[in-house]
Amino acid sequence: MLGDLVLTHDSIAEGVHFLPDDPPASVGWKLVAVNLSDLAAKGAEPVAALLALTMTGADDWEESFLTGVAAACESYGLPLVGGDTISLPPATPRVLGLTAIGRAVAPVPSRAGARAGDRLWLVGTLGDSAAGLALLQMDAAAVGALVDVYRRPVPLLAAGRALAPLANAMMDVSDGLLLDVSRMCRASGCGAEIDLHALPLSRAFIAERGQTRSARLFAATAGDDYALLAALPAGVDPTATLSSPKAPTMACIGTVTAGARLALADADGAVPWPERAGYEHRSF
Amino acid sequence: MLGDLVLTHDSIAEGVHFLPDDPPASVGWKLVAVNLSDLAAKGAEPVAALLALTMTGADDWEESFLTGVAAACESYGLPLVGGDTISLPPATPRVLGLTAIGRAVAPVPSRAGARAGDRLWLVGTLGDSAAGLALLQMDAAAVGALVDVYRRPVPLLAAGRALAPLANAMMDVSDGLLLDVSRMCRASGCGAEIDLHALPLSRAFIAERGQTRSARLFAATAGDDYALLAALPAGVDPTATLSSPKAPTMACIGTVTAGARLALADADGAVPWPERAGYEHRSF
Repeated sequence: MLGDLVLTHDSIAEGVHFLPDDPPASVGWKLVAVNLSDLAAKGAEPVAALLALTMTGADDWEESFLTGVAAACESYGLPLVGGDTISLPPATPRVLGLTAIGRAVAPVPSRAGARAGDRLWLVGTLGDSAAGLALLQMDAAAVGALVDVYRRPVPLLAAGRALAPLANAMMDVSDGLLLDVSRMCRASGCGAEIDLHALPLSRAFIAERGQTRSARLFAATAGDDYALLAALPAGVDPTATLSSPKAPTMACIGTVTAGARLALADADGAVPWPERAGYEHRSF
Repeated sequence: MLGDLVLTHDSIAEGVHFLPDDPPASVGWKLVAVNLSDLAAKGAEPVAALLALTMTGADDWEESFLTGVAAACESYGLPLVGGDTISLPPATPRVLGLTAIGRAVAPVPSRAGARAGDRLWLVGTLGDSAAGLALLQMDAAAVGALVDVYRRPVPLLAAGRALAPLANAMMDVSDGLLLDVSRMCRASGCGAEIDLHALPLSRAFIAERGQTRSARLFAATAGDDYALLAALPAGVDPTATLSSPKAPTMACIGTVTAGARLALADADGAVPWPERAGYEHRSF
């Protein structure tokens, strides 16, 4: 935070966050969208961005990539004001970074403000992107709604701005819902009970994967969702705030609890918290 | 520019900007210093930084790297306020990025404001870093002043702040003086005459390489200098402004001319403008 400015930098890497075969324009779109998702989680409006581009080939990959960056910047009113280009040896995996600057429209919710008794709300649906990636891994020519979500995630900027003034804590769900819930709880010094059955799934996801316990666990741990997770005081109903026909799906998925316990349940009873709750970049 | 804030993002890559054998703490220092050099060229004070880190190994490289980042941030009063860490497959070259935010203390000079008749001033010395790198390429255990400059460049923040109110154009010299002069001239719609003999060389550089025409051409094209190049109106003498005993070397190295011609000369007469005027990252 610098005054009312919010800063974020996310990088994406070939082979980690995108496939070498992904259309480069969609990679550019995604780089912008994942950073805007960070601004959304802070209730901020896009102001400007800096691009960090590595070039590794002699082909026109970078040119197509930049058209995707420009399309996303145009769509979300994010002027690209600078950046940096470096050349890497051929065949090195590409690493692409973006710094996005936003302006907060309300006090910025951190991930550390959740309180026992808060309700956990999720904006967006879970698992679509990971299901789309799985389809592409089976068939690089796969198409459809899930592949679209994987390639062109939509940052939930309006929802973030609407929720920021209401939320005790907020973050975007990028590495898997359950991992991100555990991070919010650890930062806030509390626990959570999550209702697996309440997780919002898209029709496309249900058509592809069903809505069994195992499908829901996949959706809750897969990551790459760019949904928003917010801890709101009990009694606050954000669906009233976000009720336009174009508003994203929103669901109450659990409760913040005292202590540090993380509990998961569905209609059939308690579900063990998965050992792999999301995608963890190594830390040190 | 966002209000009085100045933003910059520079990345450095293993094998391009640093050697795999370089001490990781020095790589961290250098990443911060090259970005602060961009702020220096805008006459800005450091405000905050975001780090973009890739991790590619299981060793403690990153931990040592971060101590160097922290040391440089501490030295120059640059709080590290956030960033992003991603894991890459082992043996992938590391790419490390930093976004630095500064606050301008005067109108920010662009590289496009040079006018015919301006004098070109250089703050700092040229060629030290490249000479140090050459020593390391011959002997990975090489030490000394030139190796120190290669590993731990010093951003000229105070000089940048002092020159910004005086300069019609300013930039930092990172890719080779002659290349960067040509960029300033192209942006400003003018040409330049550079006096090769006037280029400031350090005693360590002269001891290692001499000060022949070819040594001076090496220094003028090698890059990695993080000196400052400023176009000042004729009659402005910045040495009066920067006259403390600790001030960096400063020299008038040429004149901005009408037209687009780039001319180079030394005591023995005209010198052809080198075909390779610096380190060019491919552009598209």
